[in-house]
This record gives sequence, structure tokens and C-alpha cells, in this order.
Amino acid sequence: MSTDRNVTHWTARKYDGDGWIEEDDSVTIEYPLTVFVGDVEFATIVCSPDWLEEMTVGFLASEGVIRSYRDIANLSIDADHGYAYVTLAKRLTFDPAMFSRRRIGSCCGKSRQSFYFQTDAQTAEPIRSDLTVSPARCYELMRAFHAVSDAHRQTGGVHGAALCDPVAGIEAHFTDIGRHNALDKLYGHLLMNERSAAGKIIAFSGRLSSEVVLKAVKIGAPVLLSKSAPSDLGLKLADELGLTAAGFLRGEAMNVYTHPHRIAAGRRTGQSH
Amino acid sequence: MSTDRNVTHWTARKYDGDGWIEEDDSVTIEYPLTVFVGDVEFATIVCSPDWLEEMTVGFLASEGVIRSYRDIANLSIDADHGYAYVTLAKRLTFDPAMFSRRRIGSCCGKSRQSFYFQTDAQTAEPIRSDLTVSPARCYELMRAFHAVSDAHRQTGGVHGAALCDPVAGIEAHFTDIGRHNALDKLYGHLLMNERSAAGKIIAFSGRLSSEVVLKAVKIGAPVLLSKSAPSDLGLKLADELGLTAAGFLRGEAMNVYTHPHRIAAGRRTGQSH
Repeated sequence: MSTDRNVTHWTARKYDGDGWIEEDDSVTIEYPLTVFVGDVEFATIVCSPDWLEEMTVGFLASEGVIRSYRDIANLSIDADHGYAYVTLAKRLTFDPAMFSRRRIGSCCGKSRQSFYFQTDAQTAEPIRSDLTVSPARCYELMRAFHAVSDAHRQTGGVHGAALCDPVAGIEAHFTDIGRHNALDKLYGHLLMNERSAAGKIIAFSGRLSSEVVLKAVKIGAPVLLSKSAPSDLGLKLADELGLTAAGFLRGEAMNVYTHPHRIAAGRRTGQSH
Repeated sequence: MSTDRNVTHWTARKYDGDGWIEEDDSVTIEYPLTVFVGDVEFATIVCSPDWLEEMTVGFLASEGVIRSYRDIANLSIDADHGYAYVTLAKRLTFDPAMFSRRRIGSCCGKSRQSFYFQTDAQTAEPIRSDLTVSPARCYELMRAFHAVSDAHRQTGGVHGAALCDPVAGIEAHFTDIGRHNALDKLYGHLLMNERSAAGKIIAFSGRLSSEVVLKAVKIGAPVLLSKSAPSDLGLKLADELGLTAAGFLRGEAMNVYTHPHRIAAGRRTGQSH
């Protein structure tokens, strides 16, 4: 999965102390992709310009417009101009007003703290999984995940999301300038290939916010590992929806915040501090 | 500016190698704030729950709904339930359809690569400023900026934005779980206090994306410093709009990408590599 298309060059003045030299610098590309569903201009995603089919499919699934790849009758990408044209299967109805990010459905009254968009409450189903994985394996998977995040190392501005099998290791890996997009590309890839995330682990570079947790649950992976911090709303959702969420996974340490029974290890002796 | 309200607690299993202990962990709060403009439910912002007036005012200015604090006739916040109620001054017309993030205005045809939302093209005016600042002063300001970002150190999940005077140092500092929100809170603060950012510097913790650059230009500061990476679209906008954008500012080094004449230092001898 080359990331060359995601990077361009810019001449920067590099300061080191007080003096400067001019140098060619690699800069990550931010690409607007406008998605039409039928004849409705549905959304403009600002993303890295690779894996645009996966991006479109995963985005529509995350938004609750589709549930499977078969819900799409036709998909064509005009990469030069930044357009994705989607035709839905005939049996589906599409009401753009349902999917406006600017609206909170009145249905969300009671659980508004957790579900502030009605489509999320409709499409996120609780995780059920007997998966267990050792801490040592989590650290290994995260090391492998960082090793394949080339674009991140090159430009310092790209997030990554990977699907990991507890035994086989990394099975799919996507990067994007947007952390949500990296997860959407992974989601799109799985839907397009009719692959399940049941019994798998998602390794992720970004913060465990409510939106990230919702995407992981929709994808269906029971364990989400990140090097970054969580938010309280992300953890409330992970708790409600049966997701094992671990943050601050760095080196040989991590914090497991929800459903820790899937991380199989013994309690350490010694006092809590 | 205490950040206690932005943090809650969660019991985490902390792994260190293979064994675990249970510990109380500080977790940053993700708070949904729904903004009504007149009787229109305009948007839900997911933010840290402090400085909600600044958040609302800055958000509306960033979106191009208002230009000054006087454009707001009344603002009331229901912090317990997460609502902001805004009444605009009578002379203003408000068409919610103008501000939908899901639409690209047809006016944006030519410069679509830079301005993909029509309100941005209307409200971002090029920076004109004679400000110059030394690299050494930039490093000092960034050190001071990091020193006041308490919440960031505490929970690892919060971004910061500060307005810095080249001589006096940090004059205002805001943090938020969202990097755009941190800038919006700063913007709101300046508008509410009728303070100008002309001749000042913004220190920022997040990536220099197109949206971040647009916010800095709307705020009106001629120099934007960040520890993080830029995007190409962010740099194109900074170049077009006269903003000095510097990234990867860490310790005594930085990369200046656009309008470097405001960073006053001599070229270093030695070859470029």
C-alpha cells in the first residue's frame, strides 16, 4: 500500500537554532472528495487521496446510509476532480435530512449524552465476542502497526488504522490525514471484500473519542488499541456497547478502560499508586 | 484558567508488562453543545465544557454567521443541558442553508482546491502585517505555551491555542478536546473583548490543516506556530492569504513554510541536505 500519492513537496526554511537553510520538505496532501448519492450532493470529505472507493463506501456505512456493499448499485470515482458518484440499490430510500451532522434527532432525548446523532443509535449494535488476547500480543501488534505506518513517519501528519488478527497479525492497514477517515477506509475495505472484523483487533493511532469508538463498534471489532488518550464519552460508549478500549499503549504498557476481561493477564502484586 | 471542569475520572487497568493494577485515571470530557440561532437548531459542537460563551461566539464567527460580537443581540448558555441560545442583531439575515458543511457552493469553481466552503472564501481576508520576530523568541513563546497547557499534560488528550504578543508573551490561552475548538474559543474571547490579533502570534498544538489556517487568518494573527505537521492545502491557503506558517516547532528548531520574511534571522552557512 504505497503512500506516495498522499505526499507532495514544499520548500521550507528549516531553522536550527537561529540560522536557516532552505530544504525540500514532504507534506501530506489534504484532498476534498465530494460524494453524490443519486443526484444529491451529500458531503465533502477532506481526506488523503488514496483508496477513494474504500473511503466512500466506509463513509457511507459509518453515516448509516448503507449497511453492506450490496446496498450500492454503482460507484464511480472521478479522482482528477474529486468526485464520487454513488447509486444506491433500488430497495433503499435515501433522505438526506436524516444524515445532517447539524441535527440532533429528538429520539435521542434520554441517551443524548452518548448518542447525539440519531443514525448512530440506529446502526451501532453491541459487540459480543469471546476473544481474549495477552498484553504481550497487544504490544507486538502495536509495534507492527507502527512499523507499517510509513506515511506517518515521512510527514508526521497522518493517522493509521489496522485490522489485526490475534494470531496472524496485521491483515489490513490504512492511513489518512483524518483519523476518522483511516477507520472509514478500513471499514470500506472490509465491506467491499465481505470480510468480518469479528474476533479481530483494531490498532489505531488517534484519540479514542465517541466518534472513533462508534466506528470501531460499527466495524465490529471487539478490541480497540490506541497509543493515544480516550475521552469520557468515548469510554461511556465503549462500556455501553461492549468494546474493549485500551489507550496510551506505548512500548510495554497500556491502560485498559472498558471490558478488560478480553485482555488476559494476572493482577500484579504491589500497591496501587 | 482552571481546567478541572474538563476532566473526569475513570478506573483503568494499568498494564506494565504483563501484570495489571487498577488505578484511577484522569480522562478528558467530551461535551455536546447544541447551538440554536433564533429558532433554528444550527449545530452541535463536541467540545470541552469550559468557556462555552467563547466557544459559541468563536464558532459562529468561524462559520461566517457573525463578524463581530455586536452581531449577537443575546446569548444564553444552559450548561447543564448543553444548549446555547443565540439571537442575532436585527439587521442580520440568517440562512442556515448557506452554512451547511455538506455543501460546496458553486461559486467555488475555480479556487475549489483552496476554498471548498463558500462562507470561508467570503470571510477570510488576506493578512497584512509588518511584524517580525526572531526564531529565538518563537522558541521561547512555544515553551511558555507548553508550560501553561496543564490539561494536556494531565490527560494527554487536549489541544491548546494561545495568543502571544511578541514582547509581552502569552496573553490568552484556551484548551479543548478539539483543536478547532481551541482556536474558536480564542477567537470568541478576542471578539467578546474587542481585542485585535493584529501584530500577534498564535501558538498552536495541532496540525496546520486548511481549516486551522483559515481560522488563524480570520482571527487576524500574521504568524502561526505549531509543534505539528502542515498539510499541502493548509500551506496553499497560508501562502494565498499572507499567513506565516511554521510547523514542527520543537525545542530550538522549526520549519517555516510560508511568508518567512516575518521570521528574522540570517541564513546559515553550509550546504542544504
